[in-house]
Amino acid sequence: MTARGNLFIVSAPSGAGKSSLISGLLKDKPADKQVSVSHTTRQPRPGEVNGQHYHFVSVEEFKALIAENAFFEWAEVFGNYYGTSRKVIEQTLEQGIDVFLDIDWQGAQQVKKVMPEAIGIFILPPSKAELERRLTGRGQDSAEVIAGRMAQAASEISHYDEYDFIIINDDFDTALGDFIAIIRSQRLTGAGQIHTHNDMLNDLLAE
Amino acid sequence: MTARGNLFIVSAPSGAGKSSLISGLLKDKPADKQVSVSHTTRQPRPGEVNGQHYHFVSVEEFKALIAENAFFEWAEVFGNYYGTSRKVIEQTLEQGIDVFLDIDWQGAQQVKKVMPEAIGIFILPPSKAELERRLTGRGQDSAEVIAGRMAQAASEISHYDEYDFIIINDDFDTALGDFIAIIRSQRLTGAGQIHTHNDMLNDLLAE
Repeated sequence: MTARGNLFIVSAPSGAGKSSLISGLLKDKPADKQVSVSHTTRQPRPGEVNGQHYHFVSVEEFKALIAENAFFEWAEVFGNYYGTSRKVIEQTLEQGIDVFLDIDWQGAQQVKKVMPEAIGIFILPPSKAELERRLTGRGQDSAEVIAGRMAQAASEISHYDEYDFIIINDDFDTALGDFIAIIRSQRLTGAGQIHTHNDMLNDLLAE
Repeated sequence: MTARGNLFIVSAPSGAGKSSLISGLLKDKPADKQVSVSHTTRQPRPGEVNGQHYHFVSVEEFKALIAENAFFEWAEVFGNYYGTSRKVIEQTLEQGIDVFLDIDWQGAQQVKKVMPEAIGIFILPPSKAELERRLTGRGQDSAEVIAGRMAQAASEISHYDEYDFIIINDDFDTALGDFIAIIRSQRLTGAGQIHTHNDMLNDLLAE
């Protein structure tokens, strides 16, 4: 039978390189891996495609989905709603596809409550100085915004011990290799393999 | 600080390809990985080097080590004693080296009792037919010996659910890649990373 996919929660402070790592992972469009597409009530930004970057819905539609218990987790951020459809994720996992949830520690806690087998990965920058360099290096934000992001980063980082794995993104290729190794290893756990290869095991154990 | 190494228990029925996988892993003599060298009372075979293949000791010496509680696990097999020195393993792990214990399910159970954080990996052949083909293919054993090995294999395989990871060795390169991914991932667990990168985390969390 097809191996069920795993649900990965990926969190990181801004500047840790999470987006680049997820992009690197999905670069060759692997058939067995995809990022979860969230629902949101915010307006699409230029270039954003409905169903690919987000499922864009109205506040009324979003509230109806909350009432239906359709979301795995949802949150209101700066006046906009964001949510993850549990139904879509369950269907995707059943197809043998690993799903990646790009969410913060609050979302991670909510998901872990509903689905304790979700695997949490936390990505860290190698130092505070390097984090500041990266946040400044983008050159598109004011000193005040950067200071705010540094404070927010420290707050996010304080939840590092709630994750199953921690990747330190110093060298990008090493961090990407770490990411890939974790994902591959989680297809090989005893429980997962027994579920997937039940027939094979019966064959091997037959008299 | 140096990351502490992990202790891996590797078990498999005869014919699953365990020795080839371990050899493949250590082919380039990585500084951070080594197989545990056991003590034994059996006679060295031609080409076997003391301290490299085994620590060859007398029955009297072996019994004195048992009395000193020097062994992690030990067993008597076909009249010879075999044992694994816990002291040597602990020292090796502290140096940041992953240690691989090539032992059967009985040894695995003993090790897990003393050191629950040891990571068990079980290697399986892809089918009974393939296992029989491999055991016959060596061409050096009688049909009776092969039948005995098949029975012993089924008995060993029945303990598959006592391991943390299961690798199915159908294609060798895939299985070796699986093996490497598991080992790499275990350097990235939250608990291990927090222990190793304590100073870095304090820096990141400082005001």
